[in-house]
Amino acid sequence: MNDQVRTETAAEAAPPVTGEHAPVTDEEIFRGHEGGKLSVAAVRPISAPRDLSIAYTPGVAKVSRAIAEDASKAKRYTWADRLVVVVSDGTAVLGLGDIGASASLPVMEGKSVLFKTFGGLDSIPLVLDTTDVDEIVETLVRLRPSYGAVNLEDISAPRCFEIEDKLKEALDCPVMHDDQHGTAIVTLAALRGANLVLDRDIKAERVVISGAGAAGVACAKILLAAGVADVTVLDSKGIIHGGRQGLNSSKQWVADTTNTAGLTGGLAEALKGADVFLGLSGATIDESLLGGMAKDSIVFALSNPDPEVHPEIAARYASIVATGRSDFPNQINTVLAFPGVFRGALDSGARSITENMKLAAADAIVAVAQDDLGPDRIVPSPLDPRVAPEVAAAVAAAARKDGVTA
Amino acid sequence: MNDQVRTETAAEAAPPVTGEHAPVTDEEIFRGHEGGKLSVAAVRPISAPRDLSIAYTPGVAKVSRAIAEDASKAKRYTWADRLVVVVSDGTAVLGLGDIGASASLPVMEGKSVLFKTFGGLDSIPLVLDTTDVDEIVETLVRLRPSYGAVNLEDISAPRCFEIEDKLKEALDCPVMHDDQHGTAIVTLAALRGANLVLDRDIKAERVVISGAGAAGVACAKILLAAGVADVTVLDSKGIIHGGRQGLNSSKQWVADTTNTAGLTGGLAEALKGADVFLGLSGATIDESLLGGMAKDSIVFALSNPDPEVHPEIAARYASIVATGRSDFPNQINTVLAFPGVFRGALDSGARSITENMKLAAADAIVAVAQDDLGPDRIVPSPLDPRVAPEVAAAVAAAARKDGVTA
Repeated sequence: MNDQVRTETAAEAAPPVTGEHAPVTDEEIFRGHEGGKLSVAAVRPISAPRDLSIAYTPGVAKVSRAIAEDASKAKRYTWADRLVVVVSDGTAVLGLGDIGASASLPVMEGKSVLFKTFGGLDSIPLVLDTTDVDEIVETLVRLRPSYGAVNLEDISAPRCFEIEDKLKEALDCPVMHDDQHGTAIVTLAALRGANLVLDRDIKAERVVISGAGAAGVACAKILLAAGVADVTVLDSKGIIHGGRQGLNSSKQWVADTTNTAGLTGGLAEALKGADVFLGLSGATIDESLLGGMAKDSIVFALSNPDPEVHPEIAARYASIVATGRSDFPNQINTVLAFPGVFRGALDSGARSITENMKLAAADAIVAVAQDDLGPDRIVPSPLDPRVAPEVAAAVAAAARKDGVTA
Repeated sequence: MNDQVRTETAAEAAPPVTGEHAPVTDEEIFRGHEGGKLSVAAVRPISAPRDLSIAYTPGVAKVSRAIAEDASKAKRYTWADRLVVVVSDGTAVLGLGDIGASASLPVMEGKSVLFKTFGGLDSIPLVLDTTDVDEIVETLVRLRPSYGAVNLEDISAPRCFEIEDKLKEALDCPVMHDDQHGTAIVTLAALRGANLVLDRDIKAERVVISGAGAAGVACAKILLAAGVADVTVLDSKGIIHGGRQGLNSSKQWVADTTNTAGLTGGLAEALKGADVFLGLSGATIDESLLGGMAKDSIVFALSNPDPEVHPEIAARYASIVATGRSDFPNQINTVLAFPGVFRGALDSGARSITENMKLAAADAIVAVAQDDLGPDRIVPSPLDPRVAPEVAAAVAAAARKDGVTA
């Protein structure tokens, strides 16, 4: 085909955008989910009687007997030790809310796909037809010999905090609620990246977090751990401060620990002079509020699938804008964190995931982006294959340093 | 290479048996379990941003929303509907007994490998750190949105009966304890095959079952359903009869339903004049007992990994001998049944597995072997690829006939 002819024809017809950059269609999405997204495979094929005698009876009895005599051998001769269970009760799925366990399953299957693709880890979704904290914990405790780590996903606050705390207490393996800590790790990495671009110090910034759910509270925690002195958090009733009554335990922690200036009021009051806006609320905001922020502000509108403010509108007010979406620049996606975090934790034999392991993960993400930073490139691409191995190595090193490895 | 030369060399050197027919070594077995036997794969690879937008955010939100609005869509757009969970508490693993959940995992992984290899079904092991009947049932009820069918495995009697009954009551999907029904289906198929070889009628035979655990009771049930009039069952205390006291509920059923001749005593009394011996006890028996059986007797010594009597010794007394082992002829292995039974149940949308579905499965197995029957070939090879599709088709047809499909 003649290039000249093809170009002219395309220009004349003004056809819709096609190929990689065309919007994803419903038809493509549903076709991409037909029959589900996961498959279980045998590591070694069964094609002769001998294979059956090794993988099943009578051979397998020797392996079972060996594990019965020395429990540590399960680590070597079963898949469980490196298997991540992706667990949800479907109460806070993406921006869709409480849609139930079955409807959450496509998200959890997607998560398992990403664990394999980026972390090289086997992973299965377990979605639960109960929202009771103790029942969820109890179920995972009973299943403990089946897996090696727990990724909690899309569980509503404040139950998610309680479930994670109780599981960490009950289980001798890595447990992480990705909506909290995956988001917090990647947000910190992106904020470090943005500050490298702007040549500013994260510790001197005033950060406003809209949303006191799982992600908002975890972001506040990791920012404080990273040395940010001025953090203010809002829920649907406005700024969280020491004078607020009837707060649940996680919001009470926010009231006790953040907002040292004692701000009261709503988003307008909070954003006045602020350097950073983190949107984690699921609600949309009026663009005029962004006008009150400090010069060279940073706006992360992270709600999915609909950001708090359209990134092109936010860019009128802020120097650096990021969202959770793959169709805009600066995608803050937890896929930059969780495959490497769990891989590093399992590689090192970590029995838990510590604060230092999370901070190390954020640093490793920034380090990968460092040579190629820009206002539209504050974090690596979610598909960058360098990220997970770097994160895994940093997390494993932090685990060993913290002494939580077996 | 010259055949003549090769034969002479082999005869002179008398080398150990090598290749496919050499005994499986420990080294081979453990190497075949390194890192476990299962792997999770993505059905469609993630290699471009577009793939991520389809399989994960933002695309996946449309699929989750669609399922939230119409629950029946989970069947089409998730993997759960065709996923078999292989569930054990590790209380009756092969012939090893109560070795615990973790030590049972290699067996369950092997089972999942076989579901995939022969039935084309995805399957994951769930091993439970509890032996409480209600806790096991409750755990599976909570996980219901995660899977499509339950294969119970290696759970001790009489708890296995209670767990299966309660699960059938609580779940709207196929549930089968393979040690009971898989064994019963393949045993019936093998017995039909043996009778075709001997040109006898199964209904006229006197069958003695040694072992009143999961498999023994299930075999008694399916043989009665198949029209065998004279069945006698023994436990470790001897023949089960109406005069025995303190029997558990499944043994009481045996006492009430079998042994119409009212036999008492032990194996010697039971085997006198019997046509068929089914060993499902895990105990070894004295070969002299087989001498009391009727002419052209049938001996199935099915305990694994150690048959009740060595098949070569049994062959001195019986016309047809079978074991559960792959290294002897006539291997009675449930792999001939479960992949096809579950595949047929799931293909037809069956909400349960009925007695007719099991009888149909046994008939389908015999039908595959029919053209090639002989004393050393009463069932097809476990690796015969024709078996599972034939069993699946027969089971699906029986499910539709029984009206248990969705």
